[in-house]
Amino acid sequence: MNSETKSGSGQAEPIAIVCGAGTIGPAVARSIARSRQVLVLALRGWADPEEMKQFHHVWIGVGQLGHLFRQARAEGCREVVFIGAVLRPRLSSIRFDWETLKLLPRIVRMFRGGDNGLLSGLAKIVEENGFKLVAPQDVAPEILIPAGALGDRQPSERDREDIALALRLLRAIGEFDVGQGAVVAYSNVLAIEAADGTDEMLSHVAALRNAGRISTARGIGVLVKAPKPGQDRRVDMPSIGPRTIENVARAGLAGIAVVAGETIIAEPARVAAAANEAGVFVVGVPAGSVS
Amino acid sequence: MNSETKSGSGQAEPIAIVCGAGTIGPAVARSIARSRQVLVLALRGWADPEEMKQFHHVWIGVGQLGHLFRQARAEGCREVVFIGAVLRPRLSSIRFDWETLKLLPRIVRMFRGGDNGLLSGLAKIVEENGFKLVAPQDVAPEILIPAGALGDRQPSERDREDIALALRLLRAIGEFDVGQGAVVAYSNVLAIEAADGTDEMLSHVAALRNAGRISTARGIGVLVKAPKPGQDRRVDMPSIGPRTIENVARAGLAGIAVVAGETIIAEPARVAAAANEAGVFVVGVPAGSVS
Repeated sequence: MNSETKSGSGQAEPIAIVCGAGTIGPAVARSIARSRQVLVLALRGWADPEEMKQFHHVWIGVGQLGHLFRQARAEGCREVVFIGAVLRPRLSSIRFDWETLKLLPRIVRMFRGGDNGLLSGLAKIVEENGFKLVAPQDVAPEILIPAGALGDRQPSERDREDIALALRLLRAIGEFDVGQGAVVAYSNVLAIEAADGTDEMLSHVAALRNAGRISTARGIGVLVKAPKPGQDRRVDMPSIGPRTIENVARAGLAGIAVVAGETIIAEPARVAAAANEAGVFVVGVPAGSVS
Repeated sequence: MNSETKSGSGQAEPIAIVCGAGTIGPAVARSIARSRQVLVLALRGWADPEEMKQFHHVWIGVGQLGHLFRQARAEGCREVVFIGAVLRPRLSSIRFDWETLKLLPRIVRMFRGGDNGLLSGLAKIVEENGFKLVAPQDVAPEILIPAGALGDRQPSERDREDIALALRLLRAIGEFDVGQGAVVAYSNVLAIEAADGTDEMLSHVAALRNAGRISTARGIGVLVKAPKPGQDRRVDMPSIGPRTIENVARAGLAGIAVVAGETIIAEPARVAAAANEAGVFVVGVPAGSVS
């Protein structure tokens, strides 16, 4: 028995991973599983059943917090990680268990707040139930994008100006708990992420381009993502994956810039390969250059 | 002969109205025609042929500045008004006349800038050709929305908070020459207008709502429009019309707030009737409460 187990630091205990939609959840779970035993709590309707098969997992409904906590306790988990997207579900479509029903007035209030309010409310509920909410990047630091270019392409001087402008814009709207992303081309702001999310914002840009409504040529412009000031880093980090690359290419942009060390990247090798093939750059901008 | 004609103030001269798409152009032209003789220069592909019939008009291609200036001069116009939307056309789809071709390097540069750059560049070209560019609201002040509610409905306390939040947000992004509009519901920013324009932004919100992605109920939330700081008030005022009401209702919002005295409203009576029928409010917020 080593000293870590003795001290009860939890390193030898299994960790519960609540997994939503997208490829990021499974990628992060694989990362964590390299050093820890994991119990994946797969969110029904969101997590990918095929991907879940590789993990020891249990299916949980979105409104089943009681079930979720019981399962985690039964398997000796004291730490919980949330990862993967759960787009705000229709409140009326959720089947609640008893424990969740008791929290409903609070959850309704959380729903009325922005994403920051919703996620930090959820984090608080998890902790009140005796768990420690852990940031995925704290148990698997390799999922954070480093500074510099990820694939072969580098942003041009022009791209760097667009990146700087987008970062300034995101900082200016930070206090409004609005999206984490913006598209800027040749100093024109083409889109700002709000309730739509990154993927949909990029399809809007692609649609505008196809309609001839964007005057800058294909291959000019950047997607920039940055954390919001009030964001709970344990449950709501900006993230990119292979699908982001596809959507950026379809929107006719030159590349993607994110804040190094503050953005989760699922499957970096696949992202780099996809970026090289699509001819777009992916760059981690040092956090110091942002604020 | 009265003293005004003698002094050459232009009051008795006809005024040239360059008219783009939408119902706002004809509505403004009708307003101006009450006190002035008008020559409507109808933009081919944008202005509505049926609507043009009520005016003395000539059709002009978007790239035909030489033609436009010659027509205006031939009819003795020294003042020009621009009104109605011309969404950025695909540069490659424009047939240029010789005078416009000579300006092409400059126009290409203008196209690369944001809307402010494009419009103020155009204004400059008009003035260099010996015309005075006049703001539509200066010849027809009744097209500006007054302070207060336009129809029967009034914004609630909750709506007023959303309006204030949206105005603060628009002010924060003012320096970025981005859109003039935002949608806020129960303090959540649902959308920010950028290259898409107000109508498309509202369809995105409607689509998000239909997909169950908006947690606030129908009838909560406001569209707010405000002028951008760098905006040339002669060519680029925020405007609303009957179609804005339809789109706001479809997006499930409670109403529209715009800045009183700084927003053009086409056909106020029709807008008020449409608002009453759709059960949405339209309110002019005093400019003093904005800055």
